Amino acid sequence: MKDERILLSHGAGGKKSQELTERVFLKHFKDPALLLLNDQAVLDQIDGRIAVSTDTYTIDPVFFPGGDIGSLAVHGTVNDVAMSGAEPIALSAGFILEEGLPIEDLDRIAGSMAQAAKDAQVRIVTADTKVVSRGAADRIFINTTGFGVLRAGLEIGGQCALPGDMILLSGTIGDHGIAIASSREGIKFQTPVLSDSASLNGIVTSLLDAVGDSVHVMRDPTRGGLATVLCEIAVQSDVGIEIREEAIPVKEAVKGACELLGYDPLYLANEGKMVVVVSQEMTQKALDAMRSHSLGRDSEIIGEVSSEHTGKVVLQTIMGGRRLVDRLTGDMLPRIC
Amino acid sequence: MKDERILLSHGAGGKKSQELTERVFLKHFKDPALLLLNDQAVLDQIDGRIAVSTDTYTIDPVFFPGGDIGSLAVHGTVNDVAMSGAEPIALSAGFILEEGLPIEDLDRIAGSMAQAAKDAQVRIVTADTKVVSRGAADRIFINTTGFGVLRAGLEIGGQCALPGDMILLSGTIGDHGIAIASSREGIKFQTPVLSDSASLNGIVTSLLDAVGDSVHVMRDPTRGGLATVLCEIAVQSDVGIEIREEAIPVKEAVKGACELLGYDPLYLANEGKMVVVVSQEMTQKALDAMRSHSLGRDSEIIGEVSSEHTGKVVLQTIMGGRRLVDRLTGDMLPRIC
Repeated sequence: MKDERILLSHGAGGKKSQELTERVFLKHFKDPALLLLNDQAVLDQIDGRIAVSTDTYTIDPVFFPGGDIGSLAVHGTVNDVAMSGAEPIALSAGFILEEGLPIEDLDRIAGSMAQAAKDAQVRIVTADTKVVSRGAADRIFINTTGFGVLRAGLEIGGQCALPGDMILLSGTIGDHGIAIASSREGIKFQTPVLSDSASLNGIVTSLLDAVGDSVHVMRDPTRGGLATVLCEIAVQSDVGIEIREEAIPVKEAVKGACELLGYDPLYLANEGKMVVVVSQEMTQKALDAMRSHSLGRDSEIIGEVSSEHTGKVVLQTIMGGRRLVDRLTGDMLPRIC
Repeated sequence: MKDERILLSHGAGGKKSQELTERVFLKHFKDPALLLLNDQAVLDQIDGRIAVSTDTYTIDPVFFPGGDIGSLAVHGTVNDVAMSGAEPIALSAGFILEEGLPIEDLDRIAGSMAQAAKDAQVRIVTADTKVVSRGAADRIFINTTGFGVLRAGLEIGGQCALPGDMILLSGTIGDHGIAIASSREGIKFQTPVLSDSASLNGIVTSLLDAVGDSVHVMRDPTRGGLATVLCEIAVQSDVGIEIREEAIPVKEAVKGACELLGYDPLYLANEGKMVVVVSQEMTQKALDAMRSHSLGRDSEIIGEVSSEHTGKVVLQTIMGGRRLVDRLTGDMLPRIC
């Protein structure tokens, strides 16, 4: 008789752990390095500098419109690696499971991770599972740590924006935040708002193939949203940033939900969008490259980098005013990723 | 006024997140890659094959005799990387914090991680923090993912044991398990049993410098203990394993506590010990190398690999009998690591 729910013994490293590994993880994760069942994966030499990123996912609900914690755990870390300009190669996966979690749910989540990894062409090379007693965690938390290899000659990072650079955004903002919030609040839309959760390494490749070292910053506006990410870049690069509200794409349904729930889309999390800071002369070429990719069809130029008001972000509002944009204060949506 | 406890907003990616990062993490983690505050770290090219390992730490209690969750999170992952024969280079750190955790505790844990990393000469290059509401996690969970670079020509793994090889153990077993169990149960010893939690990369270097490619398997007997690890190796390599109970070092206090609590030291977790499978002709040299290191002074030859009873582990008991040793069944000590 198969267990239907996670038991403490599934995390003890003995027989039950082996059973769970075979029944769920090896069914979905078939990487040759992982199949050796050692406590580590051995990979070939990587030619080039290496980018490493780690993220833990505690999203609530675990299954949400447009994805689940498994696909998100792949997308989010693939994106953090890709934002350095690196091609993501491999991921590790660390699970914390609450005693009592339906194994059917874990199976669905692991399957979703495997599919997302396949789609992004990254390997899941090693994994670990811990189980804690009922009440000591909320169903499932997943850490993914990813690494990738950087193209030669690239120098991309939050500290690399220069006055005169233009700021591009790859599509609408707030979709992920509203998908989660509406799912929690039980709000129904005529056209449901889905999370934008997706792996951005494909569009990054298109962009870098087109304009290469003219890209100075790439960052995905996740927790804290577009506003916070721009504030971080302004401080890291010691530059000023000006953005135009009217240029920032927001879906009508997201606008409506924001009004209803009292959110500002500038602070909502996204999981499949990127901000790109690119040198002025390559802006159009960068925009064309981004729009040519399915995840960047709604890309827009949303602003520029200046040498004035360094460390600060200024928004030109639709009404014609100008106001300072600050980082997120407080936490309007806990456990968004 | 500084916050004394973790708030949800410390995980929201905005101002409070920045505050916590500066106040705790940047105080202890000073790696130049991390100080750039990007969502990923960029490292130099690594010459050689790469070993990657991930582990999530949910140990209860967070502070225990001989260590804490922070030092353990470094030791455990450094060891998993080192067991492949790789020299650990860098770690990522992913934190899940429960709302209400005293920031003083987090500070102590981060300091302990930084010290353990410094001692092991590995860098903590990137980190992530999530906060969940009170009751959705138990104080603090930490994921560390580590990677390292393999010496050329080594082929070490659970699948590489050969009949005729000898099995070495680097010291006493059960110390970590008993330290945790006694701490939970409030048992006092005349001489307290401390966890053996330690980074093994130094002793691995001594061993490989001495006998290099004669080492076929290295594994640290953590969850599931020595018995489970030997069972895994027997299956992975399709060999039989024979061990002698009288050769396995166990501290008197650990023996006593095992009798009192009903544990078998063969199944207790260790966090600073390793099992080494080495070709017969190099056994003495390997043993000398291990004993010359402070973490291997009590190293012993505990058994050998045979071509009989493949996939099984046989124990010669002190009483002169022979019995099959199985993997851990059930979970005698949840949240041991």
